[in-house]
Amino acid sequence: MSMYKVKFLPDGKEVEVEDGATIMEAAEKGEVYINSLCGGKGVCGKCRVQIADGKLRADKNSISFLSKDEIKDGYVLACQAKVNIDMEVIVPPESRLEAEQILMEQPVVDYSQPEKVAVARVPSDPMTLFEPLVQKVYMELREPSQEDNISDIERIIRELRKRTDYQTFETSLGCLRGLASNLRDNDWKVTATIAKHGDPWRILQIEPGDTTERNYGLAIDVGTTTVVAQLVHLKSGSVTGITGSHNLQAHYGEDVISRMVYACGREKGLNPLHESVIKNINNLIKTLTDEKELNVEDITAIVAAGNTTMSHLLLSLIPCSIRLDPYVPTANIFPQIRARDLGIDINPVGILETIADVASYVGGDIVAGILACGIADRPETRVLIDVGTNGEIAIGNNEWMVCCSASAGPAFEGGGIKNGMRATRGAIERIMITNGDITYETIGKSKPRGICGSGLIDCIYEFARNGIIDHDGKFNLSTKNERIIEKDDVVQFILAYSRETENGEDLTISESDIDNLIRSKGAVFAAIKSLMDYVGLKFADIDTFFVAGGFGSYLDIPKAIGIGLLPDIDPKKIRFIGNSSLMGARLALLSGHAFERTIHIANSTTNIEMSTYQPFMDEYVAAMFLPHTDRKLFPSVDY
Amino acid sequence: MSMYKVKFLPDGKEVEVEDGATIMEAAEKGEVYINSLCGGKGVCGKCRVQIADGKLRADKNSISFLSKDEIKDGYVLACQAKVNIDMEVIVPPESRLEAEQILMEQPVVDYSQPEKVAVARVPSDPMTLFEPLVQKVYMELREPSQEDNISDIERIIRELRKRTDYQTFETSLGCLRGLASNLRDNDWKVTATIAKHGDPWRILQIEPGDTTERNYGLAIDVGTTTVVAQLVHLKSGSVTGITGSHNLQAHYGEDVISRMVYACGREKGLNPLHESVIKNINNLIKTLTDEKELNVEDITAIVAAGNTTMSHLLLSLIPCSIRLDPYVPTANIFPQIRARDLGIDINPVGILETIADVASYVGGDIVAGILACGIADRPETRVLIDVGTNGEIAIGNNEWMVCCSASAGPAFEGGGIKNGMRATRGAIERIMITNGDITYETIGKSKPRGICGSGLIDCIYEFARNGIIDHDGKFNLSTKNERIIEKDDVVQFILAYSRETENGEDLTISESDIDNLIRSKGAVFAAIKSLMDYVGLKFADIDTFFVAGGFGSYLDIPKAIGIGLLPDIDPKKIRFIGNSSLMGARLALLSGHAFERTIHIANSTTNIEMSTYQPFMDEYVAAMFLPHTDRKLFPSVDY
Repeated sequence: MSMYKVKFLPDGKEVEVEDGATIMEAAEKGEVYINSLCGGKGVCGKCRVQIADGKLRADKNSISFLSKDEIKDGYVLACQAKVNIDMEVIVPPESRLEAEQILMEQPVVDYSQPEKVAVARVPSDPMTLFEPLVQKVYMELREPSQEDNISDIERIIRELRKRTDYQTFETSLGCLRGLASNLRDNDWKVTATIAKHGDPWRILQIEPGDTTERNYGLAIDVGTTTVVAQLVHLKSGSVTGITGSHNLQAHYGEDVISRMVYACGREKGLNPLHESVIKNINNLIKTLTDEKELNVEDITAIVAAGNTTMSHLLLSLIPCSIRLDPYVPTANIFPQIRARDLGIDINPVGILETIADVASYVGGDIVAGILACGIADRPETRVLIDVGTNGEIAIGNNEWMVCCSASAGPAFEGGGIKNGMRATRGAIERIMITNGDITYETIGKSKPRGICGSGLIDCIYEFARNGIIDHDGKFNLSTKNERIIEKDDVVQFILAYSRETENGEDLTISESDIDNLIRSKGAVFAAIKSLMDYVGLKFADIDTFFVAGGFGSYLDIPKAIGIGLLPDIDPKKIRFIGNSSLMGARLALLSGHAFERTIHIANSTTNIEMSTYQPFMDEYVAAMFLPHTDRKLFPSVDY
Repeated sequence: MSMYKVKFLPDGKEVEVEDGATIMEAAEKGEVYINSLCGGKGVCGKCRVQIADGKLRADKNSISFLSKDEIKDGYVLACQAKVNIDMEVIVPPESRLEAEQILMEQPVVDYSQPEKVAVARVPSDPMTLFEPLVQKVYMELREPSQEDNISDIERIIRELRKRTDYQTFETSLGCLRGLASNLRDNDWKVTATIAKHGDPWRILQIEPGDTTERNYGLAIDVGTTTVVAQLVHLKSGSVTGITGSHNLQAHYGEDVISRMVYACGREKGLNPLHESVIKNINNLIKTLTDEKELNVEDITAIVAAGNTTMSHLLLSLIPCSIRLDPYVPTANIFPQIRARDLGIDINPVGILETIADVASYVGGDIVAGILACGIADRPETRVLIDVGTNGEIAIGNNEWMVCCSASAGPAFEGGGIKNGMRATRGAIERIMITNGDITYETIGKSKPRGICGSGLIDCIYEFARNGIIDHDGKFNLSTKNERIIEKDDVVQFILAYSRETENGEDLTISESDIDNLIRSKGAVFAAIKSLMDYVGLKFADIDTFFVAGGFGSYLDIPKAIGIGLLPDIDPKKIRFIGNSSLMGARLALLSGHAFERTIHIANSTTNIEMSTYQPFMDEYVAAMFLPHTDRKLFPSVDY
């Protein structure tokens, strides 16, 4: 079979692929990350690339969604166009997944003082219950004598009972093999590695000498879009590193639904999705261990949090029934496993815990978030919302918890919005319109490439406040605003002119984009309102309102209230907390008690299925207005 | 390197080995089993074989221990003689390990009615607590609905809670993977395999349909000499098969001490010993599954009992400190493991439990025996003695237990006795001397090849009763018995003349043989007496006295009392129970409660170290007489 060379520009990465492979497959091989909302079905048009030498004979599928000009310029859809010649492929900025910008999704924090960060950002103060899931205990044992000739492992367990608060220890074949020599060759000075395994602690390994400093864990947020790993020193509890990357599963679909469709639509479709996330994690581990000059053997524990689909794909469990009525996952609570059993490259005895899910659409990421926000531990009523493709909402206190998921759509992550994008370099994240003048800020201070969630919120708010749109989201054409144009039969507003933007085209927002955003914010608000009504509370009863999610490094809370996304409560009660899933995973890693709380949270939180809940439907219709049909709900909004 | 062919007669097995390999190594390769008391050191002389064509140029080491006639006839020691030519080797009867006769060590029982056997032979009646360690539960589940959309595994656990007495279940990656399809493709009718794992039960696998009949376990007695496996149907508790073989570790030494010396005396010496017993077990599994037409996947559990050294070698734990003062094993209580992790060929998720040990010289075989005899469960005081190379003794009731091990030496297993042998085909197992006439019975009714434990007891008793020997074990030459001869400066008694025996030589017992036996019986009796004194009891306080061990299928209890091996109590209180280790392993396999009792027994039995216990020394000296120095202890003995 013929092989062809494909060179990707501007990176310059070159790969060889077989005749007939798609450009997307070639990109995957070369680790060039190309957008793919639809998972390679050729229906979203997000993966367009330009063939540099123009010689490719493109078929019909590979040029759908493209304009005549684009076709003339050699653009094709990477997921459809087949490689049948040596070629150079230009990946335009808007088609790139930019891995290096990933951490910008998080509030900018000073990781040089990790303890302070940890304590400051965790409302429920983890340090009072510091008890890492894997601990190393150094011991200098008394040699056996005729008066004291218990077995070697019993001698170790006796010492562990003295040096820890724990009474019950399980052994393993691994810790027993070689133990006799290990003790006698090392003067009875050894370090035991123990892992919490339900009530008992399991002895994973016995090492010569004192290795207690060499004990690290990873908290991993397995997000649909990004995978982020924090390296934590388990002896001190310090965060010593953090890194992230785009979820490589994006090659098989942008959102959880399209990935499930991929996994379930073909023989062994689950494998590439599972292998992608394992590769993600191993890449992050390599980055962190290289950076900190650690051995992978120094990492003994992982706590991973993700939504229910991500948890299933991580563990290679069939996710297919999650998306089908009545929405049943294989499991909500997962066993502790050896990370090596998944091919994750840490210490061979190292454990992996997956944070429990509540239901098919309220996953371990939300459970971790509930933990991090202290919702289950305080008498005051707190709310957590996490806005992504689904808007997940949890409300509760130490006596009860309810949650739900509303299909908000991916608008706040830039999906379904023509110039929408995630909060990476070049995204407009703030907008202000004063007397018709537009000012904006982009991430990384670069030329605008698109607009991310916080920018979209600002945009709608500023449009409404300045009368550019009406309360129903339609452009008010009577204002004769020169930025409102009609092109290809679409009425749109030019946020940035072609001279300002990275790709040299006007950056616009259309009426249909605005409509998408109103539907998204309406779904989120309706879900919050329905849940509050369900438990018989008013917004004023809320003590703290935590907002998590990928809006960007910035969220203007009054504006989010102003468009009717968040309820009209005292903005001081609203806290934007970034990646609460990662926070919760770290807490669980650092505290067996906190880890047990996650199982308690998953078991005791009531999930309300909104898709069949009539009060939600009514609230949703009422919320499709700016800020809301019922103005009494938003007394502070002044437009 | 040159290769030579070695053919073994009378089997006809042929192998090729490298120049310089020993005949023993060639035999091992060909699975021809040759005796080896000393583990190949060339010091026991038990492995002599005859070179058929006589062309081998034997060196000095290979002919030590041999008479001139033997050397002339081409005899060599298999462990010393090196193969340097193609050859045929005759393995004489006395040098053969006869695997096919192994089960004769057990009382002959009718395995065609296994339930009856099981109940009849188990004093503590296991059936009242029937609760196999691994169980299969068939279930027909209700399909999920919007009102009942718990996760798949929770649906299974809910059903398990209904159908069993258990509340707590652990999951495993194995049971979750593929589960969603498994349920939906099979109309929600599946069988869950669950294993007791501490308090919780672990779900090992979920199979389509009803597989509850296909659930077998193995009880294995890993003896120093023999490995015996019983196949048990876990649904019914029936014993459906039994087989055994010589422990292949015999190639590396006959007793536990020489095997420890082998394992600890060289780099990786542990490996061949570990691999031998795994090979043993896999061979037994193959025999049983072939015979019963089962798949290895149908076997889901193993409970293995062995002495402390055997347990360590089974699990590949370093046994070296067991034999060195202060006699410390790596572990006495072992973790549940997957049998496949040891290379044992059963269901990949199948478990292996190793019965806990009390101390370095009172192992899981004795713990299993204590369980089988119900010692820990009854208010009456019971005694178990197991006579092998060590005589292990346990005394106790449901309130206390003590035990000890006495170095009895291998005399009752035929070791250290010139014509001693194990209870296999051709062994004299009964002897009667009436008016100078000798009658005897051999195992398998064949020509005598040697004399086994029960035969030796009979022999000493009959000698003493007939005045052939005095109370100190010396031949009474004044009787002028024509069978007492002096040959090679050794006074000996001809039990069977050359015309009667298999190898055509006189079968004799010498004064030194008798001396060995008296020392052995003295050590056992002294240990029993010392333990009884330690707990302040008299022999009359014993309710039941169980005798286990490899005496043969027969033990004449009055004669065992008559030589002072067993205490002089009502013979009806003494029960010969054969392989109590295997019985206990089966009980533990069939009852989680019984399995937990073994850990309780191991933890709560007090071990008295006889080698440093002065009262034992005194008792030992007093017991070196027939029947005993203190005749008052044996009022019923009439010689």
